[in-house]
Amino acid sequence: MPTAKHILDPPFNIVRSSHVSLGVTDLGRARAFYEETLGLHVEDVSKDAIYLRGVEERQHHSLVLSKQPEPNAGHLGFKVAGDEELDKAAHFFRAKGLDHTFAEVEYQGRTLRALDPSGMPIELYFKMEKRERLLQNYEHYKGAQPQRLDHFNVFAPNVQGTMNFYLSLGFRLTEYAQEDGPVGRIAAAWLHRKGNVHDLALTNGRGPRLHHLAYWVPGPLNIIHLCDVMATTGYLANLERGPGRHGISNAFFLYVRCPDGHRCEFYTSDYQTMDPDHEPIRWSLTDPRRQTLWGQPAPRSWFEEGSPFGGTPSRAALFEAAVAVAD
Amino acid sequence: MPTAKHILDPPFNIVRSSHVSLGVTDLGRARAFYEETLGLHVEDVSKDAIYLRGVEERQHHSLVLSKQPEPNAGHLGFKVAGDEELDKAAHFFRAKGLDHTFAEVEYQGRTLRALDPSGMPIELYFKMEKRERLLQNYEHYKGAQPQRLDHFNVFAPNVQGTMNFYLSLGFRLTEYAQEDGPVGRIAAAWLHRKGNVHDLALTNGRGPRLHHLAYWVPGPLNIIHLCDVMATTGYLANLERGPGRHGISNAFFLYVRCPDGHRCEFYTSDYQTMDPDHEPIRWSLTDPRRQTLWGQPAPRSWFEEGSPFGGTPSRAALFEAAVAVAD
Amino acid sequence: MPTAKHILDPPFNIVRSSHVSLGVTDLGRARAFYEETLGLHVEDVSKDAIYLRGVEERQHHSLVLSKQPEPNAGHLGFKVAGDEELDKAAHFFRAKGLDHTFAEVEYQGRTLRALDPSGMPIELYFKMEKRERLLQNYEHYKGAQPQRLDHFNVFAPNVQGTMNFYLSLGFRLTEYAQEDGPVGRIAAAWLHRKGNVHDLALTNGRGPRLHHLAYWVPGPLNIIHLCDVMATTGYLANLERGPGRHGISNAFFLYVRCPDGHRCEFYTSDYQTMDPDHEPIRWSLTDPRRQTLWGQPAPRSWFEEGSPFGGTPSRAALFEAAVAVAD
Amino acid sequence: MPTAKHILDPPFNIVRSSHVSLGVTDLGRARAFYEETLGLHVEDVSKDAIYLRGVEERQHHSLVLSKQPEPNAGHLGFKVAGDEELDKAAHFFRAKGLDHTFAEVEYQGRTLRALDPSGMPIELYFKMEKRERLLQNYEHYKGAQPQRLDHFNVFAPNVQGTMNFYLSLGFRLTEYAQEDGPVGRIAAAWLHRKGNVHDLALTNGRGPRLHHLAYWVPGPLNIIHLCDVMATTGYLANLERGPGRHGISNAFFLYVRCPDGHRCEFYTSDYQTMDPDHEPIRWSLTDPRRQTLWGQPAPRSWFEEGSPFGGTPSRAALFEAAVAVAD
Repeated sequence: MPTAKHILDPPFNIVRSSHVSLGVTDLGRARAFYEETLGLHVEDVSKDAIYLRGVEERQHHSLVLSKQPEPNAGHLGFKVAGDEELDKAAHFFRAKGLDHTFAEVEYQGRTLRALDPSGMPIELYFKMEKRERLLQNYEHYKGAQPQRLDHFNVFAPNVQGTMNFYLSLGFRLTEYAQEDGPVGRIAAAWLHRKGNVHDLALTNGRGPRLHHLAYWVPGPLNIIHLCDVMATTGYLANLERGPGRHGISNAFFLYVRCPDGHRCEFYTSDYQTMDPDHEPIRWSLTDPRRQTLWGQPAPRSWFEEGSPFGGTPSRAALFEAAVAVAD
Repeated sequence: MPTAKHILDPPFNIVRSSHVSLGVTDLGRARAFYEETLGLHVEDVSKDAIYLRGVEERQHHSLVLSKQPEPNAGHLGFKVAGDEELDKAAHFFRAKGLDHTFAEVEYQGRTLRALDPSGMPIELYFKMEKRERLLQNYEHYKGAQPQRLDHFNVFAPNVQGTMNFYLSLGFRLTEYAQEDGPVGRIAAAWLHRKGNVHDLALTNGRGPRLHHLAYWVPGPLNIIHLCDVMATTGYLANLERGPGRHGISNAFFLYVRCPDGHRCEFYTSDYQTMDPDHEPIRWSLTDPRRQTLWGQPAPRSWFEEGSPFGGTPSRAALFEAAVAVAD
Repeated sequence: MPTAKHILDPPFNIVRSSHVSLGVTDLGRARAFYEETLGLHVEDVSKDAIYLRGVEERQHHSLVLSKQPEPNAGHLGFKVAGDEELDKAAHFFRAKGLDHTFAEVEYQGRTLRALDPSGMPIELYFKMEKRERLLQNYEHYKGAQPQRLDHFNVFAPNVQGTMNFYLSLGFRLTEYAQEDGPVGRIAAAWLHRKGNVHDLALTNGRGPRLHHLAYWVPGPLNIIHLCDVMATTGYLANLERGPGRHGISNAFFLYVRCPDGHRCEFYTSDYQTMDPDHEPIRWSLTDPRRQTLWGQPAPRSWFEEGSPFGGTPSRAALFEAAVAVAD
Repeated sequence: MPTAKHILDPPFNIVRSSHVSLGVTDLGRARAFYEETLGLHVEDVSKDAIYLRGVEERQHHSLVLSKQPEPNAGHLGFKVAGDEELDKAAHFFRAKGLDHTFAEVEYQGRTLRALDPSGMPIELYFKMEKRERLLQNYEHYKGAQPQRLDHFNVFAPNVQGTMNFYLSLGFRLTEYAQEDGPVGRIAAAWLHRKGNVHDLALTNGRGPRLHHLAYWVPGPLNIIHLCDVMATTGYLANLERGPGRHGISNAFFLYVRCPDGHRCEFYTSDYQTMDPDHEPIRWSLTDPRRQTLWGQPAPRSWFEEGSPFGGTPSRAALFEAAVAVAD
């Protein structure tokens, strides 16, 4: 059984998942989708990039769309608790022999970039430029009314190993899916720093690849409205899975694919988890309500397709989990 | 006690309340409110008028904003079941000695205009130009997402008398507010033709004046969103009453005032009433849940202010009803 | 193309769909499902039957569960506009050579039972016993908070023929699904009397069989809550299809199966249709948004399984419609 | 201007607000209200007390109703990050000369009770007995479906002083209401530990007294349903304020009073605040949208009435804030 031991004094203090950049092949097409359809706010635009955020976010961006020859995902961005945490992190990565480097990144200042043991690129920062929040600028609400980036989910070829790494950084396990039987390999894990179900989830599969990023929305009706909008504006095929209720996390959800194939989740109504003695919840891989409380299995694409991280090769999973697929 | 006798064979067949025109003093200011804030769809614009409709309506307009030196209300528009009903109506009005005249009205064709016994101007038509419905054009939904005009509410100086007139036209009583005691004067009445709580409501007061028009919206969250939008876009003072649940009709509601002072209600979730043996529901004037199920009284403005009908003088009510006012 | 001609003066006046009885094999098990889980109100219980209604309904029952050796459906019940309409209907059926008989039915009085030309049993009545409405007895709301019976949907082996019969009774067509091409056979039709999308829908297939009955609920969140309840109380396998948005009707829906296999829909937010010149909407059989606006096809069971009418043999459909099935 | 400096290394680590006990004069009457009407889950009952929790909470109780001769409030309960934090807290209170004592409290074990500098009783604990969560026991959801205790709000006679004390414990300021002008006294402050808008709010007024406790609910419709239920089950007069949208916190809210006069808020949809550089938001006392974004002022009772803490005398506020009152 996975440990639930909470490391109160981690080697450096990650506050939460913060932002990510996605490589897209057509900025105009991507903007039409992310801004006009999903409803994210465009904060800045350059020749090669579009910076977006949710209505609640006072940081400059939680999503960067950057022009690339092929779709891919950039570093997963995490905010740390102070500038000195970046130095502690560099020290930690050095001691572990993990690639890392400091960079000055536009709008977010001093940034530490590193590869985790699975080769997944992450970046840490403390100070991002601030902008006025839009939470009470209700006239600009549109699409699904995304409020804030909530979490990342990645395909991990070795869920147990990657989980152990993030647990050592002070992430805490909230739920996990496990094979039945004496071996009981873990097929998926939900890990948090900020006090809800997750900042980072790991899904067994060829990786590292980005499975999805997720935005928090006010409630289920925002998700239903997004379905209605997408179905009637040419994005019918981009509705991949849902809406539904997750068994894991209890959140109401929808998965959509952008024109470049990146997967975005809209997510609402999970629960709080900040207690140090919070106990993780186990789900059997064979429980049909794990993926969707109402029993609908996810489509094959959801299990197999993801965004490669730029410059990071992926490798096959250590084992194949026996999941229910809607074929 | 009011009769609930349903006249199955009325002198002419009114289908439902359909549209109204409001005189406004500044078309640009009115459009900003009705289109951008409330979310009605502008179907046509002329030099002196703006034609609007809800997303469900396939008729050309349910609201006409016309440039006038002073704010006022035009004829209350009702749709009849066939062109021949207009002739039957003219015959009826002639027999009753009520002023009436035929007009060709833009977009709505042959129209019979008349004054009811209280002097209130109404108009009847059968064929209005049709437009594509917007019900599944979800990307254009905004504001409160008004779907369709639901009803009119008017100040009547003689509720009982006006009610009797409309009952004779085949309107049916669904709910009414009555003084307690042996006299039991009726202070308000809800009358329908289309099968829900009302097409026309009568409120005791100086009249005839338009108390409000109401648009149906999909649900309470649309109304909450409109409050949020109005409160943060300079229309805080235009939020007059609500949101809340009506005791009468059981609908969830909000009343707002446009920049010219016309009152609009947003209304959702009443109940069906088409049974000929449907029995009207009596409310005592002293029941605090009548106006708002949750007990909040309406403000004084709600009881006293209304839109005069152009060219129609109003007169004092026959009696003053003892209503609860939030002062 | 189907006619939209509204018959204003039908041979007899049907007001709306009203009630149905379902034969169930275990009354206790059925009650646990319909009352405790779906949330219908049990109005009366006898040795062999349970009478239920929605919170808005003032009639004694809209659903009767009766003990039977095998699951089946009874007569589809329609309310007429007056007692004399029953005699007009008897006259009409006699002239058409259709089986019919008068019966005294408990709680609903004088009732005319007949077989329509497809052999489907229907019953007409005017006066049912009344009960206090529960609409504002909010503490008793539970399950999906069903408000009222909205419509029936039946498998018809000859949709065009059955549709023509009900059109001749004054039913009006609102939407229909049609094959593309020169023949253009109609595979499904939605017909109403009461002023919304339907009282009766016809689906191409072996019949006559009851496809489903539908209750109106206040909004989508009531349906989501029912999914959550059913998924966690042993009824996971009884969630058959949805929740989703219908392309046809624009309603938000869910289909569930009771322990005896009868299909119930929960339905909300369609649109009004009482205009005599309301034009029906055509959907191509190949449009994936017809069944579900968001593109998810219905499962095979939804196309094939239905409740036989007691004593009425079913026969194969005249043709097989090429529908999208989720297999 | 209040400092936003986050103390990352507080003298002891409070995780979040956790529970409170309320003295009630009639346990049966209180249970009917808190369990049957509000929808809290009764976990345990003794002769003198009832223990309740929300559906998400795995701790034994977040609310204890205890039989008392007069209504009052007990210690405000906060969870700390480990058992050793209790000793650190005792050390801290001793150094500050604040009354404190250890107690063994049923179901929550070793508990440190203390008076803060204003004389308000608080208690700290680490390990409370755990129970199975009810989050996915949807069939038991009722009332407002309270999920978890979110925060306390207390009347403080010296908001600035009390705020400074809690800031020194690592609480962080998220929003505050301030007089305009050069003096700029603070009239209210919102302070958190757990990462949303607050665990503890301070309201200028005679105190210390408990202003209210608040439960998180899934969304606005749960609050609307509670209004409907209370208005129709004899609790109309217990609906004190709302529903509405707070300007501060942006949450949708409702305030109700229990039969003993204790005030409970139902609260949903605020925003996350765990960033160390999160900047507090200032509201002018004269902004009508501060209390309620939609402009409705709170009633006088809301400003004046609160629950005394047992054994703790209250004293007048240092100044009288000029707030808008609905009279």
